[in-house]
Amino acid sequence: MLLAFEQAKKAQEQDEVPIGAIVVSPDGEVIGEGYNRRELDQDATQHAEMIAIKQACQKIGSWRLIDCSLFVTLEPCPMCAGAIINARLKEVYFGAMDPKAGAAGSVVDLFAVEKFNHHPLVIRGLFRQEAGQMLTNFFRAIRQKQKKQKLMAQDSGNNSENTLL
Amino acid sequence: MLLAFEQAKKAQEQDEVPIGAIVVSPDGEVIGEGYNRRELDQDATQHAEMIAIKQACQKIGSWRLIDCSLFVTLEPCPMCAGAIINARLKEVYFGAMDPKAGAAGSVVDLFAVEKFNHHPLVIRGLFRQEAGQMLTNFFRAIRQKQKKQKLMAQDSGNNSENTLL
Repeated sequence: MLLAFEQAKKAQEQDEVPIGAIVVSPDGEVIGEGYNRRELDQDATQHAEMIAIKQACQKIGSWRLIDCSLFVTLEPCPMCAGAIINARLKEVYFGAMDPKAGAAGSVVDLFAVEKFNHHPLVIRGLFRQEAGQMLTNFFRAIRQKQKKQKLMAQDSGNNSENTLL
Repeated sequence: MLLAFEQAKKAQEQDEVPIGAIVVSPDGEVIGEGYNRRELDQDATQHAEMIAIKQACQKIGSWRLIDCSLFVTLEPCPMCAGAIINARLKEVYFGAMDPKAGAAGSVVDLFAVEKFNHHPLVIRGLFRQEAGQMLTNFFRAIRQKQKKQKLMAQDSGNNSENTLL
């Protein structure tokens, strides 16, 4: 899980919402890692989990990640939960809950839908405080930056007015 | 929708389950196309819709496919329905229903979940008979091939016995 946090930090360093994920093989090797790159790549599918799953499939040369585990700092969205089911991942460990888009219990629980042909073991709330805090800090910093920019724009507007007088 | 079928045929030609998708811009231009490549790429995320969405994002340089439409021959799975929501696609048109994994009404309906922040317009059953037939024919051919291989293996076993006598 700490490696997933390291991935999340990479996202943060590039002004992306800090979410990180890794995929681990049955013998404990990290075979996939990824961080949220939606803005960097301008691609709606570039979530941390998707990148980590793609990399893991490439690494082992199979779309079936049987007996592999995924660790991610935030509850997966429907797309990522669907990819976890499609890749037959055995276990999913995640940190903070996502009350707006979480598909592992918060909004829907795709892992609990009986009709689907795969049901990973789900462990919720691993380092959830740290994961939640990381996101809270990120969004607080964004709001402060926006507030500062707004004030600067107002200030610049006032100066222009002064120039016109 | 006929262009989505053309994509599905490309999958079929390469022994993939025949599913095809396209993304169309508000002015009618095809900005993304894809067909199921799960086996070819050995990648659980390589569904037709995901490839078409990725390509469309690249084409317009934005993760938001606002006012764009997606056409796909089969009801999207949870991963693809999630990607459609994430990419803010305006409309989704699909052919056959998928009673085993469909996330647009068959097993779950992710597009109808109020809490999610985007709800595309969904048109179901466009050329559903043709789409369904294409899949039925594909799986029938697979079964016949498997049956033939089994018979050939049995026959080969009998010949070996004869040789031993």
